[in-house]
Formats: sequence, structure tokens, C-alpha cells
Amino acid sequence: MKPVRSIAIIGYGHVGRAFVSFFQLKGVEEIVLVVRKTITGALDNIDESVKVIWNLEELKGVDLVLVCVRDEAVAEVISLLPDHIPIAYTSGSIQLDELSKTHQLGVFYPLQSFAGISQKDVAEIPILIEARNEEMMNLLSDFASQYFRRVEAISSTQRAKLHVAAVMVNNFTNHLFSLAHDWAETNKLDFSLLLPLIQETVRKINHHSPESVQTGPAIRGDKEVVQRHLAQLEGRTKELYKLFSESIAERYSSKN
Amino acid sequence: MKPVRSIAIIGYGHVGRAFVSFFQLKGVEEIVLVVRKTITGALDNIDESVKVIWNLEELKGVDLVLVCVRDEAVAEVISLLPDHIPIAYTSGSIQLDELSKTHQLGVFYPLQSFAGISQKDVAEIPILIEARNEEMMNLLSDFASQYFRRVEAISSTQRAKLHVAAVMVNNFTNHLFSLAHDWAETNKLDFSLLLPLIQETVRKINHHSPESVQTGPAIRGDKEVVQRHLAQLEGRTKELYKLFSESIAERYSSKN
Repeated sequence: MKPVRSIAIIGYGHVGRAFVSFFQLKGVEEIVLVVRKTITGALDNIDESVKVIWNLEELKGVDLVLVCVRDEAVAEVISLLPDHIPIAYTSGSIQLDELSKTHQLGVFYPLQSFAGISQKDVAEIPILIEARNEEMMNLLSDFASQYFRRVEAISSTQRAKLHVAAVMVNNFTNHLFSLAHDWAETNKLDFSLLLPLIQETVRKINHHSPESVQTGPAIRGDKEVVQRHLAQLEGRTKELYKLFSESIAERYSSKN
Repeated sequence: MKPVRSIAIIGYGHVGRAFVSFFQLKGVEEIVLVVRKTITGALDNIDESVKVIWNLEELKGVDLVLVCVRDEAVAEVISLLPDHIPIAYTSGSIQLDELSKTHQLGVFYPLQSFAGISQKDVAEIPILIEARNEEMMNLLSDFASQYFRRVEAISSTQRAKLHVAAVMVNNFTNHLFSLAHDWAETNKLDFSLLLPLIQETVRKINHHSPESVQTGPAIRGDKEVVQRHLAQLEGRTKELYKLFSESIAERYSSKN
């Protein structure tokens, strides 16, 4: 296949939006953005160089299509595309085997959560690729390596397992921050006091295993503090506090 | 009281160790380190300028004592100190009211988790202070402001509430990282692939509320992916995955 000079991006959610801005900035020669008919406004941040179309049938003559739609829509979108164009989808969850075998199909999975992402961080996203044949693998690998720092081939099975870990470290971590944010607001505490602690929590695991830097009342076996905290909490926050404390206490007591 | 030129640090756990190195580096004129008799080795990173003693009774003539021992030992250590020396303890959990009223007592609470902390980040730690009288408050405020970027007065009640939030955003977040690390190891995945995602998770909340950047299967109401993930997990990780997914789904469905 020829090197990728023109791409189409289907979908204008968090991923599609970030990719359009990023590839625009990186000077990809031709970008076609395909959006649903219902999206007419909200196409901000788009240069005139990006061609916007509202109909999949109008799509032709690009070197690679990146499908950035919701998981439920991926199979259908692919089925509507011509089968001679190389296509890659960006979902962490969908197995390559589940999809059309008549298309030139591959996976272009950015391991990142795109809501609120900063433009300059897009190139740092690990891109995990997969394809059914060498030709498609080379195309994806060459294209991804041009723009992203870390590109790795990974099977559907491994990608699905990585997605579980991604949900834990991003979605759940962020939800903990939301619950702490609520707690701070309820108690008239300035949430920003916690930011250096949060930053340090993450900085440490660049150099240490998370296990080796665990601290707090649960690992110390300080049941009094744990009980005092639980007594102040309620609802899901209380359930999570309890479950975390048990999980931490068990993990480290069995190592002593 | 006179300005603080000499300090004693009692205890050589994570906090005591970080403070000795930090104040040494900052050129505090005189530092006395008080450690238990059982600690003889492991006194690394200590300049000759630091005087080490193994007996509380030998302690005299410093301008401020920082008590950096475990919560259970704080009251006892204070009771053994002469009552004319200003003393501050570093615990997030202990109320000032619970302790000796005959001493010049205050709180010097560093809102940080010290295991594995980098030396250059110590000055970024918010220091939350409390004292029974204005004189002691001024002493702590002047001393802390000399070395730390953010110093705030906060009551025992508010400090205890902040400690709950600190446990959530540090101890629990780090435990999530440990569980994800286990999961990656079990499945022969490179944990470092997750680091850009983790860093971005934290970077975002410097500029956005955590709630506004929540993503993932639970907030999308994607029960199929949640079930597929749960089917692969077991033990505490599975329980936590389930509870988080419920908590996230409830929170956002009630807002739609």
C-alpha cells in the first residue's frame, strides 16, 4: 500500500476531535472529517483545509480511514465503507475478529482518555496497533510512528486486558477525585490543597512500584483512624472507603 | 517567642527523614534529631551538622520541636518534653484538644504522603498549622513560610476532614495503581504503557473539575463492556470494579 498522505476521520467525539486538531497541526496533507447529519454546529477548531462531509457514501480516495465512533456503531460504520480503503478503528474493547473480513481492517488504539486532553500531550499517547496482514500492519506502523512517540503491536486479547487496567487507573482514579472534590465542597475545604499530594502520588510511580510507596491508616493497621473516617462518610463514598481499607489491609498483612 | 533558628525533629520515619534532609539542605542553623534507641544504623543522609541523640531527656535549648512519630506515640512523646519549648506535631488525625494543655503546643501538618518523595518536592507541600494562642501561631507561621510555598491555618476538625480526602486521593489511588500493576503483570502487559494515561488523568484536574472529565464504560452506560471486564476479574479487584462502576453510573445517570 502507498504511504498515508490523506486520512479520513469518522466521528467527532473526544477522540475524533483530538485527532482532527492534532493531524491538522502536524500538517497531514489532506484530512476529511465525516460527521453525522445531526452535527452542524460545534465544528469549531477546524481549518479550512479539513473537508467536512455528512455522508459516508461521499468518502473516497483517502489512504486511511480512522473510525472514531462509539463502540456500538463501529461494525455498522465499517460495513458502509468501500472495501478497498484501509480502515482502522480506535476502540479498546472490540476484537478484530468480530468485524468484517472483507475490508482492509486494522486497529489504531490510543491508550488515553481524551476528555479535556491538552493538544501538546497527544503525541505522547501510546498507539497500540493490530492488523490481519503484514501489509496493513506496516501501513499502520509507518503512519503511527510518524506522529506518535510509542507505537506497539498488540493482540485483541491483550488490548482488551489493557483496557481493563486503563479503566482502573483512569476512570476509577478520576472518580475518586470527584468523590474527594464533593467531600471538600461539602466541608468547605479548598480542593486545591490536595493537588500537590495527587501530583506526587503519580510522580512516584514513575520511579517506584505502587506497592512500595503505599502509605496511610489501612496499611499501618490503624483501625481507629479508619473507623473514625468511616463514621463521617456515607453512601458510595463510605462503601468505597471500607472496601479499599479492607483490600489494602489484607494485601499487606499477608506480606508481613 | 524568638524566631526559630534551631529545631529538633523527633522520629525517623518517612516524615522525620524527609524533614531532616530538607531542613539540612535549607541551611537551618541547628538540627537535633531524636531517634529511638533501637535505631543505630540506617541514619544515612545525615550531615555532621545534625546532632543525633537517643534520649528525649537530653533534648534542650532548641527553638521548636517537630514531633514526627506515629500517631499512637504522639501524646507520650509530648508528655516527656519540657513544657517551655514550643512543640508542633505532624499528624493529620490527632485533635489539638486531645493533647497536653501545659505545653506550648501546635500542629504542623504536611499534607503529603512521604514514602518515596523526591527532595525537591518537599517545599511544595502545603503546611497546615494550628495553635492554641497567637504567639505560637505566629511562630509556626513565620517558620513554615520561610521554607514552604503554601502555609494555611486550619482547625483540628477541618484537618481531620482533609485527612479523609487525602486518604482517598493518595492511599486509594495508589492502591488502584497496585491492583492495575498486578493485573498487568499477570497478563504480561507492560505497566509503563499506562503511565501517560495516569499522568494525563492528574494533569487534567489542574484545569478541569474531575466530574467534567469522567470517561469510560460506566459513565457511557456501556453494560456490555462492564460485564466483560467483570467476568475477567476476581477478588477485591472485582469487588472494587463493580462498586466503582455502580457509583459512576448512578452519579451521572441522576444528572441526565
